[in-house]
Amino acid sequence: MLRVGAVVDELGGELHGDADRVIAGILPLHLAGPTHLSFLSHPRYRRDLEHSQAGCVIVPPDMVNIARQRGDCIVAQQPYLYFARLTQLWKRMQRQGTEDDGPRIHPSAVIDPSATIDPSARIGPLCTVGERAVVGADTVLVARVSVGERCVLGSRCLVHPGVVLGADGFGFAQDGAEWVKIEHLGAVRIGNDVEIGANTCIDRGALLDTVIEDGVKLDNLIQIAHNVRIGPHTALAGCVGVAGSADIGARCTIGGGAVVLGHLRIADDVHISAATVVTHSLPKPGQYSGIFPIDDNAAWEKNAATLKQLSRLRDRVRKLESLSPPLSEH
Amino acid sequence: MLRVGAVVDELGGELHGDADRVIAGILPLHLAGPTHLSFLSHPRYRRDLEHSQAGCVIVPPDMVNIARQRGDCIVAQQPYLYFARLTQLWKRMQRQGTEDDGPRIHPSAVIDPSATIDPSARIGPLCTVGERAVVGADTVLVARVSVGERCVLGSRCLVHPGVVLGADGFGFAQDGAEWVKIEHLGAVRIGNDVEIGANTCIDRGALLDTVIEDGVKLDNLIQIAHNVRIGPHTALAGCVGVAGSADIGARCTIGGGAVVLGHLRIADDVHISAATVVTHSLPKPGQYSGIFPIDDNAAWEKNAATLKQLSRLRDRVRKLESLSPPLSEH
Amino acid sequence: MLRVGAVVDELGGELHGDADRVIAGILPLHLAGPTHLSFLSHPRYRRDLEHSQAGCVIVPPDMVNIARQRGDCIVAQQPYLYFARLTQLWKRMQRQGTEDDGPRIHPSAVIDPSATIDPSARIGPLCTVGERAVVGADTVLVARVSVGERCVLGSRCLVHPGVVLGADGFGFAQDGAEWVKIEHLGAVRIGNDVEIGANTCIDRGALLDTVIEDGVKLDNLIQIAHNVRIGPHTALAGCVGVAGSADIGARCTIGGGAVVLGHLRIADDVHISAATVVTHSLPKPGQYSGIFPIDDNAAWEKNAATLKQLSRLRDRVRKLESLSPPLSEH
Repeated sequence: MLRVGAVVDELGGELHGDADRVIAGILPLHLAGPTHLSFLSHPRYRRDLEHSQAGCVIVPPDMVNIARQRGDCIVAQQPYLYFARLTQLWKRMQRQGTEDDGPRIHPSAVIDPSATIDPSARIGPLCTVGERAVVGADTVLVARVSVGERCVLGSRCLVHPGVVLGADGFGFAQDGAEWVKIEHLGAVRIGNDVEIGANTCIDRGALLDTVIEDGVKLDNLIQIAHNVRIGPHTALAGCVGVAGSADIGARCTIGGGAVVLGHLRIADDVHISAATVVTHSLPKPGQYSGIFPIDDNAAWEKNAATLKQLSRLRDRVRKLESLSPPLSEH
Repeated sequence: MLRVGAVVDELGGELHGDADRVIAGILPLHLAGPTHLSFLSHPRYRRDLEHSQAGCVIVPPDMVNIARQRGDCIVAQQPYLYFARLTQLWKRMQRQGTEDDGPRIHPSAVIDPSATIDPSARIGPLCTVGERAVVGADTVLVARVSVGERCVLGSRCLVHPGVVLGADGFGFAQDGAEWVKIEHLGAVRIGNDVEIGANTCIDRGALLDTVIEDGVKLDNLIQIAHNVRIGPHTALAGCVGVAGSADIGARCTIGGGAVVLGHLRIADDVHISAATVVTHSLPKPGQYSGIFPIDDNAAWEKNAATLKQLSRLRDRVRKLESLSPPLSEH
Repeated sequence: MLRVGAVVDELGGELHGDADRVIAGILPLHLAGPTHLSFLSHPRYRRDLEHSQAGCVIVPPDMVNIARQRGDCIVAQQPYLYFARLTQLWKRMQRQGTEDDGPRIHPSAVIDPSATIDPSARIGPLCTVGERAVVGADTVLVARVSVGERCVLGSRCLVHPGVVLGADGFGFAQDGAEWVKIEHLGAVRIGNDVEIGANTCIDRGALLDTVIEDGVKLDNLIQIAHNVRIGPHTALAGCVGVAGSADIGARCTIGGGAVVLGHLRIADDVHISAATVVTHSLPKPGQYSGIFPIDDNAAWEKNAATLKQLSRLRDRVRKLESLSPPLSEH
């Protein structure tokens, strides 16, 4: 429970209404009641705002009149950002009542004696941390995380269960039909403020390190191969696969299930749609896509069959063009 | 080892043949010998039935004559369903001889004292169960499963190794180039009779819960993002990714590697083909697909190159149509 | 630190230069300095060779003159293969100084007493090995690996963290709207010299075993469903999904994120491009692809919209062809 006044004291914003109103939770506009705080994340939800029963709503400056006709509000330049900070405040508040968070290093974790764990870091249950690995200040390995030998995590990282950092990259030389393993002598180097989702894997480099720069956010079940670099503040959604030695710039976003092939370069500020396959370098910022459109199965089957003849269809069109009267006549 | 008579006593069906025949195993028609039980899963395997050396076969009523010419059989309305129940019977029988299944809660599991574990539930080795989590009756966490704080599993669920329930959803607000974390105050709520495959992840909701309803079956390496709802008896094959706030109906099936984008709604009884990307809501039942057809590499390259010019090709066809004699003449 | 002479003594090759040069590391041509060994992996990097500051470079016979103009070199028939063996030598050398690798079976691992672990195998921390499972000679489970009951691993396998071998396959019979579980009575059988990447899953078979043959290499986050067979020396890149009962031949390669549907057969020596969906059997060796080409978002949208009308576009071309003068006239 928080007073609205306490929220504004902590997070700023201009309160129109009762500072002593007590808030029991945060809910979307259409579900919130008189004891809830809510927020307008986008102007398209203006209707929901008008009808919301929320005790208080967070709105941008240009919505203040509409919001006040409805009841109490907090005016913030960026309501969604304000909401994010509110969730953080809420979590801290919830934590206050409970006992402390238990031991800094859970006794079930298996830590190599040569590893360096910052005294403020937290290593949850059933993690493994290898030889000479480094875990920075305030970094949290939630549970069941593996950090391989010599891998380095910066400060304030959050690593969810099942993550594997520093498994061997997938590298082999061929000797006839057989694969001869390339031992991976590099490691994984992760900057500050990186979040890594559940069951995501980041492989160690062959000779140099795989590098994840500051502020990168990785969702669940992502595969980052050896020698990849991901630039600062880039975010990858779930199930993305990045092949070896790909170099991804800063402030990119990559949608869920996308695949980035190896040995290519993606510029800063590139945005890749979900399920798109990046087959060549993208030297310019922009939004890129490559998704087969979904359709009912019968229509898809017909179109897919024609697609297999597409270059021939183009040849047929060319032939028709060569047969038809010159375009200049029209 | 089971007598055929014991099978029929337990599972029903009409036996034609020797009830005292002893069965040492279950095998497909073409591999079964005189000590094996087999089954006809589909009429297209009729040939295999005719030539099978199986000691006894499970067949539908309309195959009884063919089956009896061959030897012993059990007649069942749905042989594949009968087979499924037979595998369950077989497993129970195999278990009987062995000592008991060990402790209900393996001593290596790390369970928060505030969690509620039903006395009939089994928590396997090296699992973690967080604060105030709930595990229902007869639910089994096989091994190395993580259940986050406040997540709830119903009764008779089966959760395979490596599963992560209730990691934080992937939610951030932007503050310039930086991502500001949205703390996830919701949890994961899982109904009864849900099976969750190895290394699958289900994230907690931001404000409300992520919800998996009764009888849902999830294969391995699936990603279910925050605030998703999956309706009863829906089944997802391996490597599917479901983005945030997607709402999937009842009795759907989603093929392996498919991607469901966020904030969309899939009706009941929708079937999505493997590797298809669901980019918009699907309000009607049916089968939907979107797969780029595989081809030999040279043919694919030509067709893919033409595909990048496809809308221009359509414009060229339009132009040709405008140049050609009126269709009414033909 | 290794003397160049010691490298050649161990791995062969013809040294041109100073056998007493001491090497502090291995680096790519453009980053190597006088204390580094480097290698020419492909003739296209000849420029890098000419300008490399490496103390010594590994080159093929036809590059010896260029290499010697630059400085010391080792001539090897296959420099990349030589490099792979060099990384192995390097790792062994690095290991020599350190204390031994700890206990053969880490005390935190949970091993069923009926499992058979070869005395030379290593079971890392927080692994689980089920009833009657078998782990062969010199096989290593790095950490947090689960091996299900009755699963068998051959000799010299390397299994990375988070791997799940022998979870139940995804098999159910329908009983009205409900799914009835098919208990999986088979297991997983893995040959010799198999490497399995982090968080990869291989499900047990329903009646027979899922089989991974000798020398197979699996990258991270791969899903191998029940009853699959993968032939010797086949390699699968990250995030591949293989559906049930697929039978994949020897010496195949499957690119990252590809999906192989169930109950189909892939011949020996088939190569599948990344992110390709194999929807039917491929009885002939070759390279196969099916990737929607990436484009800037606006162009993709137009082409994708046209693609949904493609079979109609073909019909329109047919009509135009029927209207146009006979081709023989041209």
